[in-house]
Amino acid sequence: MKFLTEYLVFSTEKRQELINITPQIESLVKKSGVKEGLCLVNAMHITASVFINDDERGLHGDFDEWLEGFAPHEPISKYRHNLTGEDNADAHLKRTIMGREVVVAITDGQLDFGPWEQIFYGEFDGRRRKRVLVKIIGE
Amino acid sequence: MKFLTEYLVFSTEKRQELINITPQIESLVKKSGVKEGLCLVNAMHITASVFINDDERGLHGDFDEWLEGFAPHEPISKYRHNLTGEDNADAHLKRTIMGREVVVAITDGQLDFGPWEQIFYGEFDGRRRKRVLVKIIGE
Amino acid sequence: MKFLTEYLVFSTEKRQELINITPQIESLVKKSGVKEGLCLVNAMHITASVFINDDERGLHGDFDEWLEGFAPHEPISKYRHNLTGEDNADAHLKRTIMGREVVVAITDGQLDFGPWEQIFYGEFDGRRRKRVLVKIIGE
Repeated sequence: MKFLTEYLVFSTEKRQELINITPQIESLVKKSGVKEGLCLVNAMHITASVFINDDERGLHGDFDEWLEGFAPHEPISKYRHNLTGEDNADAHLKRTIMGREVVVAITDGQLDFGPWEQIFYGEFDGRRRKRVLVKIIGE
Repeated sequence: MKFLTEYLVFSTEKRQELINITPQIESLVKKSGVKEGLCLVNAMHITASVFINDDERGLHGDFDEWLEGFAPHEPISKYRHNLTGEDNADAHLKRTIMGREVVVAITDGQLDFGPWEQIFYGEFDGRRRKRVLVKIIGE
Repeated sequence: MKFLTEYLVFSTEKRQELINITPQIESLVKKSGVKEGLCLVNAMHITASVFINDDERGLHGDFDEWLEGFAPHEPISKYRHNLTGEDNADAHLKRTIMGREVVVAITDGQLDFGPWEQIFYGEFDGRRRKRVLVKIIGE
């Protein structure tokens, strides 16, 4: 059985960003030498997401607006969590909608993807160093 | 270590449908010969879901209404994604709520399920050929 | 390859509770003897969740209020599912937002967690016996 564990580091310029990380994950699958197995990719921070969807700029704008409707950043005082001195309660909720992790099958040494599947890092409280875990297991 | 990779194909009559796929997944677990392991089931399209809930018609009606409230199909022009010529931005959002994938434990050669757990394919932009991936790994 | 399968049992006093189950999961990882692998933790009931977020009381209050906004418990008659005699349709929807399961990497015999990640059991229709499955696979 083979394992690979890697940590990707992000430090976004903006508070919220969606970043396509598929090329990095594909490289790690190759590096792992795993031909058949599973690839777990998860945010290690609780105000960020890893999810699979379409790499289309309009859709990303729709996601931003939709999430802001669910969990507006302001007023900060709207959230009890922000009484701790934080201003990121909305980011905890947005990440809950978008999800913490994806598990992707590896078949014939490749991510076994449908035609439009792409893996994204979703940052909802950025401008500081945050990590994503990639764990590959298989043979 | 044993692996099984299979693709289920769906082409729904209606734009939105929820289909119980538990019997197909159970057959594949048996076919795999895996006694202890994990079973990943995921939509390969980004306007469809795989999720676990109850096989109760009233609840499915509640899901439909609830998702339509979150992400109405119309007006089409409400979404930037639809400026590309698509009319399925709502389906991308609905699938985000319902989830892309489930990971189910296999114990003693069976899906290790609670009393009411059933696996569903959730189609939100149907009337064309779409696939679900089943990946089983274990011993 | 090593496997561990365990079932945690919960019977909450209140209809809704969020319970930090990280210590139990850490014990099971140790018990499994797995140094490299994956740990699946899932609710076995469809009105409960397992999710990862922050162990902060204010945030948990925010979650409660936010989920009640999405899927209010009352009026019971609002939901078709409740025509079956149930009163828990809202719990099925709340669990959908919070998620059924988490998959966590095991590295060097430990849950490979970011600084604030904690695993929670989210009960949305409690006051009766319900189970959570823990499945650990690896080497």
